[in-house]
Formats: sequence, structure tokens, C-alpha cells
Amino acid sequence: MASELIIKGEMAQSAARALAVLDTDTKNRALFAIADGLEADSAYILEQNRIDLENASKKGIPAAMLDRLALDRKRISAMAEGIRQVAALPDPIGEVLGMTKRPNGLIIGKVSVPLGVIGIIYEARPNVTADAAALCIKAGNATILRGGSEAINSNIAIVKSMCKNGEGAGLPVGAIELVEDTSRETAVELMKLNGFIDVLIPRGGAGLIKSVVENATVPVIETGTGNCHVYIEKTADAEMAKRIVINAKTSRPSVCNAEETLLVDRAVAGKILPPILTALAEKGVEIRGCAETVAIFPGAKPATEEDWATEYNDYILAVRVVGGIDEAIEHITKYGTKHSEAIVTADYNMSQKFLAEVDAAAVYVNASTRFTDGFEFGFGAEIGISTQKMHARGPMGLSELTTTKYIIYGNGQIR
Amino acid sequence: MASELIIKGEMAQSAARALAVLDTDTKNRALFAIADGLEADSAYILEQNRIDLENASKKGIPAAMLDRLALDRKRISAMAEGIRQVAALPDPIGEVLGMTKRPNGLIIGKVSVPLGVIGIIYEARPNVTADAAALCIKAGNATILRGGSEAINSNIAIVKSMCKNGEGAGLPVGAIELVEDTSRETAVELMKLNGFIDVLIPRGGAGLIKSVVENATVPVIETGTGNCHVYIEKTADAEMAKRIVINAKTSRPSVCNAEETLLVDRAVAGKILPPILTALAEKGVEIRGCAETVAIFPGAKPATEEDWATEYNDYILAVRVVGGIDEAIEHITKYGTKHSEAIVTADYNMSQKFLAEVDAAAVYVNASTRFTDGFEFGFGAEIGISTQKMHARGPMGLSELTTTKYIIYGNGQIR
Repeated sequence: MASELIIKGEMAQSAARALAVLDTDTKNRALFAIADGLEADSAYILEQNRIDLENASKKGIPAAMLDRLALDRKRISAMAEGIRQVAALPDPIGEVLGMTKRPNGLIIGKVSVPLGVIGIIYEARPNVTADAAALCIKAGNATILRGGSEAINSNIAIVKSMCKNGEGAGLPVGAIELVEDTSRETAVELMKLNGFIDVLIPRGGAGLIKSVVENATVPVIETGTGNCHVYIEKTADAEMAKRIVINAKTSRPSVCNAEETLLVDRAVAGKILPPILTALAEKGVEIRGCAETVAIFPGAKPATEEDWATEYNDYILAVRVVGGIDEAIEHITKYGTKHSEAIVTADYNMSQKFLAEVDAAAVYVNASTRFTDGFEFGFGAEIGISTQKMHARGPMGLSELTTTKYIIYGNGQIR
Repeated sequence: MASELIIKGEMAQSAARALAVLDTDTKNRALFAIADGLEADSAYILEQNRIDLENASKKGIPAAMLDRLALDRKRISAMAEGIRQVAALPDPIGEVLGMTKRPNGLIIGKVSVPLGVIGIIYEARPNVTADAAALCIKAGNATILRGGSEAINSNIAIVKSMCKNGEGAGLPVGAIELVEDTSRETAVELMKLNGFIDVLIPRGGAGLIKSVVENATVPVIETGTGNCHVYIEKTADAEMAKRIVINAKTSRPSVCNAEETLLVDRAVAGKILPPILTALAEKGVEIRGCAETVAIFPGAKPATEEDWATEYNDYILAVRVVGGIDEAIEHITKYGTKHSEAIVTADYNMSQKFLAEVDAAAVYVNASTRFTDGFEFGFGAEIGISTQKMHARGPMGLSELTTTKYIIYGNGQIR
């Protein structure tokens, strides 16, 4: 075990104990100080970011990844503004979630408390560093961050700034720890840091998530893979269906709540598909359809079995004609990733059946799948979207960064 | 991957989809039919249990383990009665935990739904088979059971009876699956059955829990290890302190909520310890104390560093004199397993400080740690006691066997 991790784990554990009893005002003051500090330190942060960008360019890293890595004053201000918004949210800690008096006189209360130490493993996106740390602090947690190696200089600069300014405003030392050794071996060791990490949250692509799920021995919250469907039921309003499908596919194809497969009832496919697929094609979307779809819309390429299971995250849409709601739900059950699923319908019973039988974090009637998001759900923040069923499901805000503790008031009871 | 597991996984997944939408009445009818059936089939179950007991005797298995393995008519009736009690509990599924209307008109509801397929790995205790399966069914989950090899014939008989009678009353086929290959290899494969198991709950001793935590790639709820403390603060009522300490240690030393270490304030140790330790010694409890304890109570053996970290589950108590509440909390933080911790005090501020600063699933003021239990907490049932912070913490009842789903009612919203 790398001694760096043990030392950081012990520091974080010690900070977590102090954070757990830190009052709301001090946490908020620290967050405001951190936000102001990031802006004040922006020259230094940008200088370090430039080193990362130069190294990444030399390695021939793709343009999209370079864009996510790049910072400028505007992006740093956006990070700071995000932290100020987190400071303004209600403190999720110390909420009494229930209190009962038992027949023996014991008063048993359930209160929200921090998880403790949260590990975050993510890719080369320096904004996640500030964002994740701020959310963890607000919920009273210490955090151990392990960002992508390409962003290491940016991350060191950001964490240095956050710690200096946060500690000046009362944040305990160790509240934000960054793993500076970005080797794969150390990442795997972090995933096995039982006793130091209470929950590990991976944020990133499918490869990263898979590696964490396979290697971690600490508790993990799986996030982010979304093979989402829109199902146009035969009573659907054609205009609404078109609007929702186009929005779900094209408003931001790279994200996990974007639509990947369109299912449409045979009874209306011939009429409803051509205008929708034409509009999508005009927006540059490649259509991969079942045989019936290709017959209706010859611009479609034939879809393979693999297409149904693929999260494209791109301007590609799979399209399948189905015999009705049961076939649609069967398809979703077989190929979906239990993220976000939508039906477009005017039939009350179909809407209720879809809501009841589709097993996903978010099930929509007559709305775009793109709303699965902590901000859109009104949480005021988001640390990720859980695609597992344990602890948290769907968008995770501050509440999902807490656990509970039973506090029991007695007067001498024995059993 | 053993094909047995894949087949059982697929069966369980399919049953889980049916169970998720099964109405409360059918679930309850199935549970009552299962309970009646276990009693009706008791001759067959006892015959199979006798085979297990004979095999176990030949292997020279310890008497305590044989006792846990043994069934008789009374124990089968107790199993049946437990299932009837589960049937009588409120259905935890379909509860609306919140519903908000967003500025764009979307109505976002959060409802409780089953976890899906729950894996349970446990030791040679046939009653757990019936108990765990009944709780899972009530919460709409299918279950894959893997009990200790010594109980395999009993478990096959119990599951056969439960399936036959449950299915006759409307339970979907596959709702209760038993892994009949009890090899260690198959157990490890079960821990890696991603895509089929939504949550895995180990129930048993420290070795079993450790093996699951280290090997599982499916989400796990860690249960059961308890190195629990009682701290006698200097203002404690001496009689109350004695009553609580004796109860917490001796009412059932083998369980996880029993006291393992007594901490006592130096200011009162000389006066308060002798009567307590004398009473414990009279009940056959071996005292292992720090130097000060040995000086006060010469019947104590000197404790080693290892004693502070040991969950004895036996008639042994470690005793340490501390300088005050901070030293007590420091000791608990260092050696405790975050299960159940108690303070005995008459000082308001000390009680509040202990409740706030001790990080454990259940923190008690002036009551025995032995109350950490689903029945004592009023849940009407218990599947185990979670000692992790994710998903569930402390005693787990039916609610802890559920997850949530967001259901969103729109009228054409796009983002």
C-alpha cells in the first residue's frame, strides 16, 4: 500500500471527525472563502493548467478532451460561482428524520450525519475537483480526490488554493486531499482503502466505472451509464413526440441522459416516423433502424443487435418498431441501463403501466429524458447520477452525501 | 461462471419483475401459505435436517453450531410464526416519499420500489432461509440464498416447501432461489454475479463478512461486527451504571450488540468499579483491565492492546479507566466498529457531546447497547444490522430492502 494513501486517508479521517460537528456558518464561510480564493489565485491556476495543456497536446490528446481540460478566467469564475451556490443551499446535516417513543420509554431518533470520507475518482476535468470538494464539505464530509493524470498540475493548484483559503476560514486540515501519484496502481489501491474511505464515487466514462466496480472493496456508488429510450405509444401526440425525441437525442448527445434508442408502435410508425427521422437527419443524426424502420425511412442504416445495447453518446439513434407497450418494456428491460426512460402517450392506462413496470432511476411520461439532472430536479447541485439501487438512485444532491445515525435517549433501560 | 448461478440469476431477475408489481394482498396470501406449508411439511423438513445433523456430528462440528443447525417442530412453528408476522407488517412498496412541481410544470415524484434481486450469504442456520426469503418477498424482492454447506439438506427442503406453497398462492416462479452447490468457488462467483444481483447481504461471523467485502463486485451491505463500549461518565448514577453494564455484557454475550469494553472515568473508578466487576465476576465474566483497573480490582487480568480491538462474543470484558469524555471518545473512535456505543451520565452537556461526536450506527444515553435490533426499534422485523454507512445503517427492516424510483409526469416538456 502506497504510504501516500495511508497518510492522506488518516488525514481525511481526522478531518471528517472535525467536519461532522462543524456548524453550518463555518462551513459556508469556508466555502465562500474558497470561491473567492479560486478567483484570486486564478493566475497561478491558469499557469499550472497551461503546463497540463502543453503536455496533453504533446501526447496528441483529442480536441474534445483538451477542451474539458482547459481553464480560463471565465471557467474559474464559473467554478467559484458554483461553490457559492452550494454554500447557499440548506445544510443537509443534523436533520431529524424521525423520532419515536418505544413502549419501554426509549426515545429513538434518526438524524442525518455525514458519510465521513468520500473518495472521488474522475477524469481530466479540473472543474470536478472544485465542484466535488465543495459538495462534500457542505455535507460535512472529507474528500480524497483522484483526478485524471492529464490534469494533475491544475488539480494540485486548485486543491492548494482551496485548502489555503478554506483552512483560513475554519476548514479542518485534511478536509480536501488530492492523490498526487496518478498511476493506475495507486488508483486501484485507493479503491481498496477500506477503513479510510466510507464511499467511493467514480465520475466518468464506462471504462472508469467498470474498473472501479471490478476492483473496489470499499462501498461504491456506480454512476453514469445511460442507454435511454423514448417509446412513442400509438396514442401519442405526433408533434409532442417529435419535439421530445429531437430534444432527447440532439440537445446534448454526449451526456448520459440523452436518448439512444427510439421505440415506436407499429400502428403509427408509418405516419409518425418519417417527419421525426427527417428532422433528425437534417440535424446530422445517423439513423440505425430495424427492418421495418428501414422500409419506412430508406435513409436509415440497418441496425445490428449491438446497436440496441450501445450508448452512442453521439449523433446516432437506433430506431425499432414494436408491437405495443409490452414489447417496448421488454426491449427496455433487455437493453436498458436503468437510467432514464420515457413514454409519449395520451392513454392514461399506458402511462401508469409504463411508470409501474419500467425499472429505471427516472421514468417519464410526456417529457424528455434530458431532465434527469440534480439541478433540473431542484436539488440545487449534483455530484453524479447513480445507476445502482443501493443508497441513492438517480441524480445525487447533498442529501445523497449523508447517512444516518440513531440517537437513543434512555433513563436506565436494560433488555 | 457456474451455469447453475446464471440460470438461477435469470430466474430471479424474471421473478423480481413480476414481484415488483404484485399487489400487497397476493404477497401476504403467499406468505401465509408459505407459513402454513412449512408446518405441514415439517416431517419432511425434520427428516432432511436429521441428515444434516448426522453429517455434521460425523465431522465433529462444535455443539453450539449443532444447536443452531438443529430444527424441531417448535422451531419450525417459530419460523412459520415469524413469516406470519412479516405478512402482517405494512407493505413498504409504493410509498410516495415526495412529490414536487417544478417551475416548468414537471411533476417529479419519488416512490419506494423493490431493490430487485437480493443475495443472502449466511451460515448453517436453516431458520435464516425462511426468515430472509419472507422479508425479501414482502418488500417485493426475489432472493438468491446461499446458506452454509452443513445445512444444505435442510435448506433444500425448506426452499422446496416455500416455493411449492408460495407459488400455489400466486408467488412468481424464481422468487426464492437456493444455491445448491455450496462450494467456496461458487460462493465467490455469486459475489461477482453483476447484472443479476442488485444487493448482497452477508449474515454471519467476521470471516464470512470479510470474505464478501473482499471478493464481491456486486453492491454489498456489510453487517454485524460489533466492538461495543459502555462509558461511565463521572456523574453517572452508580446503580444505573451497574445495571446497564451487566445487561450489556451478560444478557447475551454472543451477539453483536453486546458490550465488549467498559470505559470509566478516573474520578469515580475507585468507587464505581468494585461492585460492578464483582457482580460480573460472580456471573462468570473474565475481566481484562488496564493497570489502574487491576490496581482497583485485583481479580482482573492485565489487558493487552489486542483486547481493546477484540469482539469477544463471550463472557469476557475489557475495562479501561479514562481521564474524561474526550479520552473515552478517542478510545471508541480508535477501537470501535461503529455499531453501538453508550454513555451513562447525569450531565446534559456530556450526553449531547457523546451523541454528537461518537460515530456509530446507534449511540445511547443511559440505556444498554443490547437494544440495537429491528424488533426493539419497532420495525417488526430485521434482516441484519448494517455497520456500513451506505444505504442503510443500524438495524435493517423492510424499508431497508427497498430503493426508490423517480416518476415524472410531463405534458411535452423539453430541455
